[in-house]
Amino acid sequence: MEELKPTSANSCPLTPLGFLERAATVYADSPSIIYHNTTHTWSQTHRRCLQLASSLSSLGIAKGHVVSVLAPNIPAIYELHFAVPFAGAILNNINIRLDARTVSVLLQHSQSKLVFVDHQSRSLLLNAVVLFPPNIKPPAVVLITDEYDASSQTVDSDFVCSYESLVEQGDPQFKWVRPESEWDPLVLNYTSGTTSAPKGVVHCHRGIFIVTVDSLTDWSVPKQPVFLWTLPMFHSNGWCFPWGMAAVGGTNICLRKFDASIIYDSIRRHGVTHMCGAPVVLNMLSNSPDNQPLDNSVKILTAGAPPPAAVLLRTESLGFVVSHGYGLTETGGIVVSCAWKSKWNVLPATDRARLKARQGVRTIGLTEVDVVDPESGASVTRDGSSLGEIVLRGACIMLGYLKDPVGTRKCLKENGWFYTGDVGVMHTDGYLEIRDRSKDVIISGGENLSSVEVESVLYSHPAINEAAVVARPDEFWGETPCAFVSLRGELSMKPTEKEIIDYCRKRLPHYTVPKTVVFKEELPKTSTGKIQKFVLREIAKGMGSARVSRM
Amino acid sequence: MEELKPTSANSCPLTPLGFLERAATVYADSPSIIYHNTTHTWSQTHRRCLQLASSLSSLGIAKGHVVSVLAPNIPAIYELHFAVPFAGAILNNINIRLDARTVSVLLQHSQSKLVFVDHQSRSLLLNAVVLFPPNIKPPAVVLITDEYDASSQTVDSDFVCSYESLVEQGDPQFKWVRPESEWDPLVLNYTSGTTSAPKGVVHCHRGIFIVTVDSLTDWSVPKQPVFLWTLPMFHSNGWCFPWGMAAVGGTNICLRKFDASIIYDSIRRHGVTHMCGAPVVLNMLSNSPDNQPLDNSVKILTAGAPPPAAVLLRTESLGFVVSHGYGLTETGGIVVSCAWKSKWNVLPATDRARLKARQGVRTIGLTEVDVVDPESGASVTRDGSSLGEIVLRGACIMLGYLKDPVGTRKCLKENGWFYTGDVGVMHTDGYLEIRDRSKDVIISGGENLSSVEVESVLYSHPAINEAAVVARPDEFWGETPCAFVSLRGELSMKPTEKEIIDYCRKRLPHYTVPKTVVFKEELPKTSTGKIQKFVLREIAKGMGSARVSRM
Repeated sequence: MEELKPTSANSCPLTPLGFLERAATVYADSPSIIYHNTTHTWSQTHRRCLQLASSLSSLGIAKGHVVSVLAPNIPAIYELHFAVPFAGAILNNINIRLDARTVSVLLQHSQSKLVFVDHQSRSLLLNAVVLFPPNIKPPAVVLITDEYDASSQTVDSDFVCSYESLVEQGDPQFKWVRPESEWDPLVLNYTSGTTSAPKGVVHCHRGIFIVTVDSLTDWSVPKQPVFLWTLPMFHSNGWCFPWGMAAVGGTNICLRKFDASIIYDSIRRHGVTHMCGAPVVLNMLSNSPDNQPLDNSVKILTAGAPPPAAVLLRTESLGFVVSHGYGLTETGGIVVSCAWKSKWNVLPATDRARLKARQGVRTIGLTEVDVVDPESGASVTRDGSSLGEIVLRGACIMLGYLKDPVGTRKCLKENGWFYTGDVGVMHTDGYLEIRDRSKDVIISGGENLSSVEVESVLYSHPAINEAAVVARPDEFWGETPCAFVSLRGELSMKPTEKEIIDYCRKRLPHYTVPKTVVFKEELPKTSTGKIQKFVLREIAKGMGSARVSRM
Repeated sequence: MEELKPTSANSCPLTPLGFLERAATVYADSPSIIYHNTTHTWSQTHRRCLQLASSLSSLGIAKGHVVSVLAPNIPAIYELHFAVPFAGAILNNINIRLDARTVSVLLQHSQSKLVFVDHQSRSLLLNAVVLFPPNIKPPAVVLITDEYDASSQTVDSDFVCSYESLVEQGDPQFKWVRPESEWDPLVLNYTSGTTSAPKGVVHCHRGIFIVTVDSLTDWSVPKQPVFLWTLPMFHSNGWCFPWGMAAVGGTNICLRKFDASIIYDSIRRHGVTHMCGAPVVLNMLSNSPDNQPLDNSVKILTAGAPPPAAVLLRTESLGFVVSHGYGLTETGGIVVSCAWKSKWNVLPATDRARLKARQGVRTIGLTEVDVVDPESGASVTRDGSSLGEIVLRGACIMLGYLKDPVGTRKCLKENGWFYTGDVGVMHTDGYLEIRDRSKDVIISGGENLSSVEVESVLYSHPAINEAAVVARPDEFWGETPCAFVSLRGELSMKPTEKEIIDYCRKRLPHYTVPKTVVFKEELPKTSTGKIQKFVLREIAKGMGSARVSRM
């Protein structure tokens, strides 16, 4: 057998880029993208991406170059997921809600050669470019105008040209650049994560191919779904669904921005079948005054934070079928998901929600998942309560952090595991549940307690809209849980701090009950909708020690 | 970017073996296998496979060893798709319809260390072992008995032990052997292919992982389908669906043998949702007196030969939803499929059938497919009529033929393409259609049989001067072998058709024996003396279908 080695016929690099070529054959006349009154077909999208790639080549963009994009979920950002790598370059989506200083840091760090900027992020980008030191040449900039936006600006001397002119000038017969190796980088995604310094996560063609196909299989995505873009494509490449939709010939419903009313309207107008979003989107849908039971069920995939059970229940009662998964920017997409068992259908709703809020089991594309003692590396007991760090291994794990060998080695350890920094437990049935980001763990009286557990109780309170629990320093206990909550708008009677603490006391171990409750109009959030716990932690820290209490 | 290399956390070998471990967690109590009145759950199947693998290790089976299996679609052959590679060994399924001489050749060629044999193939296997030359040690043999078969024999001294005793004695805590490299061989499948000598196709873990996941995506297989095993698992590993069913937690309905009545009964009893089979199975279903419209539609995937339009129409009218694909033993499973366009639904039935009979487009797991001039390698015109050889490249292509570097190089060419030996056209819409299976292959009942092999037996008959075997169309089998022979001039007694068929029957597997023998004064030849098979093929085609026979 030893004589049989890989050959050039069977070792061609795995890449998701070929999905578009295939879609242009199979789904030629079917809609690829819908945006306001514009509809493109798959053969048009294929041709436009080839033309763009051709123009990028003409501008000197080549293998190994980074091309950045600052745009919301408009058609251009979808096309650039193919067009940029078609030219051999590496796609770098940048969160449009960042500030100019951060954007400037990212553009410099990535040595981006070219930036595509949506006209609404024009000032942000130009301000970022101004912040470049004189000895560093800023990237060329292409402006994405928008025919549906009256404020869309003309292309002036700040820009190389407009996006559409690049499309128009390109050669539709352009031969796209296949990766030489499947380990060649495909995307660069900066993550603020919940840590301070942004890190440049690099994924290769092989990894993104695997996550894309894996996510389609795991979510049982059928052919030609109608996919509503409520997850930013700049967030972890929309969990790889830009490539996934080309694989199954789906229709991408693009949205510049959205609220509950826009989502409900899109669902009705386009017959949406699938959408993704952080739990905050579920919360938005279920708390909206526009909400009403759906005519046809819509599948919604959520990840990014553990969904509170109460939010799950409310969302499902409207006709959404919620799937829950777990992934990090470093895993390219969702790699652990709460695979549902039909026997759970007969359980009471609250039990179902509790089970669905668990992160679950590895997808078939991930090799292994475990929860380990971070010191010894030994697996924790599978008892649903022994805390440990979540570790992963598989083809979807990033190549590493750009220009950060120390950071890379710190999480891609020599023992063959990726250390996520997330704290979780393994249940007896083999399902994983996150208990916290490591730094979100509150240590009170020497006991580790999970803020997520406390939050899920707070979310079940009928008056509470959003909740986040962080550590407040305490002279006696070390730390105590401090809850920040926002209340529902329509309330006639607002609960007091004591009422909320009493509510928790009936439902939680004493030591995990918040000692403090702070009411807020709204909780601070990241651009991707995650509650910014570090902001709340700072506030809690500033409050000083809580009154000494006795157990 | 260059500093970012694969690490042990992201370069873990792709393998389908982990699907079973995951199924034991996700689908623990759900049925994995149903056979008569026996039902196993996924946790039982997982445990049994680990126990088997443990026993195989105890018997000395280790990495790189070949373990052969001679069995129909009973639970044991399903389990061995995991248990054999769990022990680090290479699985070699052998077609139970072969004759003892061929089986002996395959066992010797593969240097098989151990054979699992179903009790009904006991004599076949023992006769094959008797044919081993004295200097070659035959493999040890494990007998698979069957509690539902009264003729199931006791384990005598010809056998190491029974299959069930291996299961019982094994350690359920056995640590299965992960491949060191994803290029490590996983399976060895012999194919008569396009030449006379059987060839040992070797696939690696990576290739089978890709085909398995790809086939699930391409056929849009949902979670927990009920899968009826009407495709032999010994035939190209049942197109990878043994591993695929573990990935989606399906229920495998095992059948020792079947006819239309058994299939219809199984569909009703078990609520079958999915099945596979050569077009001969479709023919069986639609021609059966038992046929009646289904209560719930059943998805049926067919490949192995182009399905006749009339058969497609009859099958679909009963409620089967037919998908059509194309693959070879060398591609591990289906890698080209007739992706259906909704706009075709409005066409007349005969047009729909004609479109569905085309092989189609590459699946998302295949890198490229083309139809080329075999000499120059240039793509033929996409006009639906320019003939060329079908070539493929992608991760699913075999590693090569065992101990046959010349044969391997002949099809895995240095230009990076696998040459299939099949002749086809590319339609203007990018859909591939086979026009002629590689000239010398006859496809009878979904099995490829080599005319060269049959001819060599005919040539050994003392009365036969010249012989050529071509395909004759057959309503039931698709094709049957039709022999054209010229006799020696000096004969006093000429053999009859029946005598020649009987002669072949003693020397060939039953299904390769010519069903028709045509006597000719002389066979048509080219100027250089080669028999003009295309002339004979035309004659055979003009003869129409041979008498319908039963499987």
